[in-house]
Amino acid sequence: MSISKLIQESVEKSSWIRKMFEEGPKLKAQYGAENVYDFSLGNPNLQPPEEFHKALAKVAADSVEFGHGYTPNSGYPFVRKAVADYINEEQGINATENEVIMTCGAAGALNITLKALLDPGDEVLCPAPYFVEYGFYAQNHGGVLKTAPVKDDFTLDIDAMAEAVTEKTKAVLVNSPNNPTGQVYSEESLGALGKLLEDKSKQYGKVIYLLSDEPYRKIAFDGIEVPSIFKCYKETIVATSYSKDLSIPGERIGWACVNPEATYKDQLIGAMTMTNRILGFVNAPGIMQRAVAESIGATVDVSQYAEKRELICNGLKEAGYTFTKPAGAFYLFPKTPTEDDVAFVRALQKERILVVPGRGFGTPGHFRIAFCMDNATIKNSLPGFAKALKEFK
Amino acid sequence: MSISKLIQESVEKSSWIRKMFEEGPKLKAQYGAENVYDFSLGNPNLQPPEEFHKALAKVAADSVEFGHGYTPNSGYPFVRKAVADYINEEQGINATENEVIMTCGAAGALNITLKALLDPGDEVLCPAPYFVEYGFYAQNHGGVLKTAPVKDDFTLDIDAMAEAVTEKTKAVLVNSPNNPTGQVYSEESLGALGKLLEDKSKQYGKVIYLLSDEPYRKIAFDGIEVPSIFKCYKETIVATSYSKDLSIPGERIGWACVNPEATYKDQLIGAMTMTNRILGFVNAPGIMQRAVAESIGATVDVSQYAEKRELICNGLKEAGYTFTKPAGAFYLFPKTPTEDDVAFVRALQKERILVVPGRGFGTPGHFRIAFCMDNATIKNSLPGFAKALKEFK
Repeated sequence: MSISKLIQESVEKSSWIRKMFEEGPKLKAQYGAENVYDFSLGNPNLQPPEEFHKALAKVAADSVEFGHGYTPNSGYPFVRKAVADYINEEQGINATENEVIMTCGAAGALNITLKALLDPGDEVLCPAPYFVEYGFYAQNHGGVLKTAPVKDDFTLDIDAMAEAVTEKTKAVLVNSPNNPTGQVYSEESLGALGKLLEDKSKQYGKVIYLLSDEPYRKIAFDGIEVPSIFKCYKETIVATSYSKDLSIPGERIGWACVNPEATYKDQLIGAMTMTNRILGFVNAPGIMQRAVAESIGATVDVSQYAEKRELICNGLKEAGYTFTKPAGAFYLFPKTPTEDDVAFVRALQKERILVVPGRGFGTPGHFRIAFCMDNATIKNSLPGFAKALKEFK
Repeated sequence: MSISKLIQESVEKSSWIRKMFEEGPKLKAQYGAENVYDFSLGNPNLQPPEEFHKALAKVAADSVEFGHGYTPNSGYPFVRKAVADYINEEQGINATENEVIMTCGAAGALNITLKALLDPGDEVLCPAPYFVEYGFYAQNHGGVLKTAPVKDDFTLDIDAMAEAVTEKTKAVLVNSPNNPTGQVYSEESLGALGKLLEDKSKQYGKVIYLLSDEPYRKIAFDGIEVPSIFKCYKETIVATSYSKDLSIPGERIGWACVNPEATYKDQLIGAMTMTNRILGFVNAPGIMQRAVAESIGATVDVSQYAEKRELICNGLKEAGYTFTKPAGAFYLFPKTPTEDDVAFVRALQKERILVVPGRGFGTPGHFRIAFCMDNATIKNSLPGFAKALKEFK
């Protein structure tokens, strides 16, 4: 073996999904990209808001003056202060720049947090379906991802979570608005989860952290407010990015914020600052730190995602699909007409529709549609969705 | 314990050096920043070349059109192609975009490579003195850093390397021009190292990789050419960044390139593309990928570093310090007048001079000066350097 056995295994395990993704380029070459309906990737199609474009042009010009040197490992203090002020206004807490670490997106934030927390064999618990990368993130740092089911409408099942917490649980990881379901967890359910973790922490004589991955916080529909996790439990850490708020996922900029009330706050922040350094991130990209501080509060036009949600939901409902209408994010997670989600995904490919099977998120019998696509693609795909379901039934 | 034991230990182990660095801000508050001679950090003081500023302004303006979406995990194909073409011209190999992965700096490149290579307990061997982060990078992925001494003039000691290679050695990691010594390894010594690894690979029935960390390649003095590692051994990987060429370390942009002749090239590149994704880098910052492609070949004015080298070397020579004149990079690694390098570093602090003790690089009895500072700082520090040495003798 010339490479790491673990990585080799991971590459092999994911080869089926890679093969599935390889269908996309083949279909596009055969029929033309405009005739393939690719809903497989959560790469937002909206342009960044005007504020971000202006901010980037400004910081690019100003950088001739301020340069591009290393920033502190946790990020520029003035940027962290701007982020903390914004979180305080949004979520009613009292964070300072000392609780905020600028990161290489939410993926970076999650990795530095888990590396700071996990000892070998520690468990990270998350509700399933879940973003498939979480398994790797836990494994990267010697941990093991465990899952607990959610309710039929994809809301939190606190009893199932309670059963799944063990003495090895170091952190519970939630993601709301959720990828792949679009569900938003209620304040009540998060409060119950916080209470559960408080009890379990006492029971096991340790701190069980609640880690919240929130890149879709700004994308919520019908006036729904995404509750603040900080108010539900004090041992909380938020990991997030500007990837979706500002439609800039390729720029890798986000942050982690530790609850100012967390018991071992200073120790934890010291550890995360170190893991940000030693994992090779070193610091979040400097010019993007400045650009997001300069455009703080700006968001893409969420009404456009709301419109896409209506288009896809109405179309699939009419075609006879069963699903829970998403409250946020830009994903839909319908049931497949068979338990064999891969078979149905292949049937959709015959209609030149690309989606991801539910087993990619730990939940077979479903498939994920990323509807962050232009409206014409959504509209033109609907006959194919209808045909595939009809033929399968 | 609320955080990872390993990270807690690492934080504690490095607390002495942190305390030492805390002296800096204290001294600056007391005497004014302009009266403190801070040579402790390799944060280059030169401004990026004009080409980079122009490129950044251009890509920032163009980005309104092309957006900021995720790039492929290995980077934009056109950027990788531009990088491969440049490497080919510079080093006379035949790389294509398929052998290049754009990364979050050299630190990112080293981490994704080591994660792709290492199984638990695998050894990474490097000559000492060495960049202290290497120990963390190996440990991050279950490996162990081993060291072998260099010769008195900091050139490679192939016999010492030969003794240190074991059946557990998965990779040898070299860094030339070197941090902290400024030494540049000769083509002859790298050829001998390649031959050694070829023999040892045969002996142990495995591939031992040679990983070369080259962020200082462009900073070489007196017309010295930094040899290409690719020609010395076929199982080679180069990790580097634009941090020093372009003076943009805060932007986190670099690349890894696998030797096109490497035996398990495709497997290795597949693994590294995956580790770039799952470690949370996802892709190198998009706009910086474009900016470096747009300014490829541009370099800071290296003659300015050469001037600084003369200033510091002449000054310290006159004061009676013993050192090997650096052939590249912007570091000097003089001997301390006592084995207790920390004591001498404290003596320098009394002269308001900040440097790093040699034990921070696995080699006590020395100290590191990062001379990427303005010329006035260097000149004004010289009396203090002279006084500290005189008082110690």
